[in-house]
Amino acid sequence: MLRINPHYARMGKSYLFAEIAHRVAKFRADHPDTNVISMGIGDVTQPLVPCVINALHAAVDDMGSSETFHGYGPEQGYPFLREALALEYAARGVSISPDDIFISDGAKCDLGNFQELFAPETTVAVTDPVYPVYVDSNCMAGRGGTWTEQGWSGIRYLPCTAENNFIPPFPEIAPDVLYLCSPNNPTGTALNRSTLEAWVHYAQRNGMLIMFDAAYECFIDDSQDDIPHSIYEIPGAEEVAVEFRSFSKSAGFTGLRCAFAVVPSRLNVGGNGQLHDMWARRQTTKYNGCPYIVQKAAQAACSPEGRKQTQDVIRIYRSNATLMRETMKNLGLSVYGGVHAPYLWVRTPQHMNSWEFFQFLLDRAAVVCTPGSGFGPSGEGYARFTAFSSPESTLEAMSRLSSALKTA
Amino acid sequence: MLRINPHYARMGKSYLFAEIAHRVAKFRADHPDTNVISMGIGDVTQPLVPCVINALHAAVDDMGSSETFHGYGPEQGYPFLREALALEYAARGVSISPDDIFISDGAKCDLGNFQELFAPETTVAVTDPVYPVYVDSNCMAGRGGTWTEQGWSGIRYLPCTAENNFIPPFPEIAPDVLYLCSPNNPTGTALNRSTLEAWVHYAQRNGMLIMFDAAYECFIDDSQDDIPHSIYEIPGAEEVAVEFRSFSKSAGFTGLRCAFAVVPSRLNVGGNGQLHDMWARRQTTKYNGCPYIVQKAAQAACSPEGRKQTQDVIRIYRSNATLMRETMKNLGLSVYGGVHAPYLWVRTPQHMNSWEFFQFLLDRAAVVCTPGSGFGPSGEGYARFTAFSSPESTLEAMSRLSSALKTA
Repeated sequence: MLRINPHYARMGKSYLFAEIAHRVAKFRADHPDTNVISMGIGDVTQPLVPCVINALHAAVDDMGSSETFHGYGPEQGYPFLREALALEYAARGVSISPDDIFISDGAKCDLGNFQELFAPETTVAVTDPVYPVYVDSNCMAGRGGTWTEQGWSGIRYLPCTAENNFIPPFPEIAPDVLYLCSPNNPTGTALNRSTLEAWVHYAQRNGMLIMFDAAYECFIDDSQDDIPHSIYEIPGAEEVAVEFRSFSKSAGFTGLRCAFAVVPSRLNVGGNGQLHDMWARRQTTKYNGCPYIVQKAAQAACSPEGRKQTQDVIRIYRSNATLMRETMKNLGLSVYGGVHAPYLWVRTPQHMNSWEFFQFLLDRAAVVCTPGSGFGPSGEGYARFTAFSSPESTLEAMSRLSSALKTA
Repeated sequence: MLRINPHYARMGKSYLFAEIAHRVAKFRADHPDTNVISMGIGDVTQPLVPCVINALHAAVDDMGSSETFHGYGPEQGYPFLREALALEYAARGVSISPDDIFISDGAKCDLGNFQELFAPETTVAVTDPVYPVYVDSNCMAGRGGTWTEQGWSGIRYLPCTAENNFIPPFPEIAPDVLYLCSPNNPTGTALNRSTLEAWVHYAQRNGMLIMFDAAYECFIDDSQDDIPHSIYEIPGAEEVAVEFRSFSKSAGFTGLRCAFAVVPSRLNVGGNGQLHDMWARRQTTKYNGCPYIVQKAAQAACSPEGRKQTQDVIRIYRSNATLMRETMKNLGLSVYGGVHAPYLWVRTPQHMNSWEFFQFLLDRAAVVCTPGSGFGPSGEGYARFTAFSSPESTLEAMSRLSSALKTA
């Protein structure tokens, strides 16, 4: 008689976004004429750039003719895309072999699936607040222990708050795996070169794997700080780190689905090159590759013209973030992030907790943010705002937010 | 210090197709002027039908405009596609709620990932010969035991050979889970209604889950036998079975990637509705949905015009299968399958084992098949041929095969 995975039974439903949706639905029912502006979910709104659209049409035509039809592709991705990505790394002085790049349909999938390669008893650390996928996927695999007010007993949370400039502290006892996200979701802050160097050295000393989530690297503003776009800009990182990247934010592919993981064959954590071979085995067994037409679109996004066009889109979101940052600072709020990332992390004012501030903004401004406490214990007292709305909606939201806070 | 999942370490590389590729490469190097015809891998060769191509172009245009752009879609798939699929079921008299349909990028992914929901100690049975993904994904999760000449000690193999008409025998002690594939890969045979009824009753009596792989249902020839297209045609199956379907073969989507799993909320194996909720939790945590443009293409394939056009393509492959079947039978070979499936399962002649026959055909006819032994212990003494080549190549391959066998 079938028994279910007992670790799933303990997970419960994903509470955060369900609760937000529930509260927003109630507000809409009570205020049918009010236009609610969402700064909650991190989804892009600008259309795909012309260069990508053209590549998609051409690839679709390929699929309609016997001579150019593409059936199953290589599970690891087409060489044309892996080579284009290796060239992008090379342009930043980083040497990555196309053989170490694994194309997929999402960084969320890769980040969720990669923990399969670890032994069950692996100890996992995350920065806190945290993107829930790192925690949930490990809990589903039995590494969560029990749920408490302070999070899962089996997961080590490294607090990142204004008090430590959102730089995770080094644990005295090293975990086996650390998830690092820079620029960070949800705090919008980024780790500079010396901090990343220190973490790479810590990983080397302790045989710890760094799961480096660089999904937001395209938002790094090189004119402002020395923020590495890739963990592999740090010498030695290829021995201790796996990197996850995505076209979701860099080229607006949230609905098109293309991402990649770099799993170096030079990784020596977990045994020489073992994780590279295991990930190849995992993907060939349980995955069948990203669609040909999507990989052609991604290749176009990597072209000089594609990068120029996508940068123009990113500039729109960046300018939203600047407006939001300035407005909220002028209102006397403590605002973090928003320089190297599309996220702003804001201290809740007037002693409100995260959910109270969420409800206040919904009721008084019809603006939706994400309560920081939903991202982990250290997120309490903060809220996340995303810069992905249209410029018009962003302006309107800031105007409403100003009125609400001034009259509060 | 990170330790790897010990079960992966025991897996080794995927031997079968690597060894085939190696032998074919050697043959090509030795015979550079010979055109090798592959009947090995089950990949389609005909282009996407016009109806699907048109839908793709229209959906690509949607992605290029702010008003019609689609970002993140629902992880479970767009309602328009789930509703279209529910209607296809309804047309066969099967009532499936769109809420029980989960769209994905591949049946291989779904079949590989679904075992995550089972407790670690779950006992798994497969028919033998078998599609390797069922076995490998369970071995990676620690259910394999040790590897022997007769397969994995922890997996129960139910032999399906000519001697039992490829109908799996009922095990005396029921496993927790049984993978059933009908029409079958690799044997090309299909289970009729009374056999499936017996398995559903067995599952009900024993609290066993049936993982029903119906990836090849579009090849069922209703004029010849009473073969259910869906396990849900059997009353009560919605309490004991999950069904996996794909657009790969039904609409030529091997390179476009769209599939779906039906996980009924009425399933009572594993607890009432539990598996449905757990699969939803799994997909929302580790998956981000199938691309919008691909789901629009799949919707077009389900339209009356789309089904007419895809049926014309399937007719090409079916006619290849008929030619192959007739040719090989006339040569005195024992041939199975090929009526309700794109696969033919052929007894190796002249006391050759599977690999000897593979090498004989490669050397004498430059035709590539798949050695049956690669699909499991009961595959020894057979070879699999696929009907997915062009009609011209199929004719040529059969002519060469005839000459080779007549002069052997």
